[in-house]
Amino acid sequence: MDDLKDLTIAILGGTGPQGRGLARRFAVAGLTVVLGSRTAERAEAAAAELAEATGGAVSGASNADASAQGDIVLVVVPWDGHAELLESLKGELAGKVVVDCVNPLGFDKQGPYALLVPEGSATQQAAAILTESRVVGAFHNVSAVLLEDPSVESIETDVLVLGDDREATDAVQALADTVPGMRGVYGGRIRNAHQVEALTANLISINRRYKAHAGVRVTDV
Amino acid sequence: MDDLKDLTIAILGGTGPQGRGLARRFAVAGLTVVLGSRTAERAEAAAAELAEATGGAVSGASNADASAQGDIVLVVVPWDGHAELLESLKGELAGKVVVDCVNPLGFDKQGPYALLVPEGSATQQAAAILTESRVVGAFHNVSAVLLEDPSVESIETDVLVLGDDREATDAVQALADTVPGMRGVYGGRIRNAHQVEALTANLISINRRYKAHAGVRVTDV
Repeated sequence: MDDLKDLTIAILGGTGPQGRGLARRFAVAGLTVVLGSRTAERAEAAAAELAEATGGAVSGASNADASAQGDIVLVVVPWDGHAELLESLKGELAGKVVVDCVNPLGFDKQGPYALLVPEGSATQQAAAILTESRVVGAFHNVSAVLLEDPSVESIETDVLVLGDDREATDAVQALADTVPGMRGVYGGRIRNAHQVEALTANLISINRRYKAHAGVRVTDV
Repeated sequence: MDDLKDLTIAILGGTGPQGRGLARRFAVAGLTVVLGSRTAERAEAAAAELAEATGGAVSGASNADASAQGDIVLVVVPWDGHAELLESLKGELAGKVVVDCVNPLGFDKQGPYALLVPEGSATQQAAAILTESRVVGAFHNVSAVLLEDPSVESIETDVLVLGDDREATDAVQALADTVPGMRGVYGGRIRNAHQVEALTANLISINRRYKAHAGVRVTDV
């Protein structure tokens, strides 16, 4: 893949906390970012705020236009509606590296838990729908609170990158590496994405017990 | 629970690499360890070697006798036969803290992958069988190679401890804390054990890619 500085990073669901937080970090790293949202107006408003706050290159567009503009497209939308959104963007996302960041979780009074996904994981669902795209799973376990906090200069976490396409996983690891403190680590094939998505339920449990914003580091790598 | 020094730590499947490795570390930490195996003779032979190597208190017994002797009983057996073994030890394990360390994994030419478990996870299967025991999940992601290597003085990893019984999870966290470099971290309820077991498939993938013995650290805790 080309140098990340020459690519456009699109973030679908870019007006939610996780999407906004990732956009902030990539903008600060000097990358060109397009936020996508259901309406272009919402995305443009969030993008204007981020561009102002970071001095970076952030614009906004509808999810479809952001998909068309992006070279690497992050999917940071709620699990509810994930499949429908991707179905609707199949054409725009053809040929692109699509990074699924979605955690299918449920919550009840006992806290968070992993939802069963017929395809195995959100990432596998994306791959099943986007047969013309290069689907990778990543950025599942990163705290939105830390990403969005401008006083946090370094995000001390590894990003496990799951995928079967080496060039695509390498590019997404490099994308993670642009954020200070963050490191992209190859995490296995796409069929092993489920547990990385689901691990977010454990991290939320840890956050509650320890009053933390927990992340994951891989040792000996 | 009582001080760990006053308790006996039993390790079922204690003659395999993971069980032997954990036994070694607990023996070095000054704890009283009983290795269990299908035959008392195999367990006694492995225990004699470990006692010699560590100068620690390690004995061997059949899995049933080790279960009866242990206050905290670690289950470190192959997934194949897991349910049958626990069914056969229901009586001996009643009232005990039982720590399931088993990772239900499959392997094919594409590498490791997580197996589907009807109960959700090995830990939940153990809890479903051992209704009179206090079942906890832990020690899933620890490299047997590092545990068994006497030249490795510190095991740089966190142990995610899963369970719904606070006193039991606290005891198992304390057990992990006895090993230099290792730290017990509460990882959530037992219903969130699956992804921690399955994450071992990712760590094996990481080991293959990076020629490492990967472990996990939780940041901000």
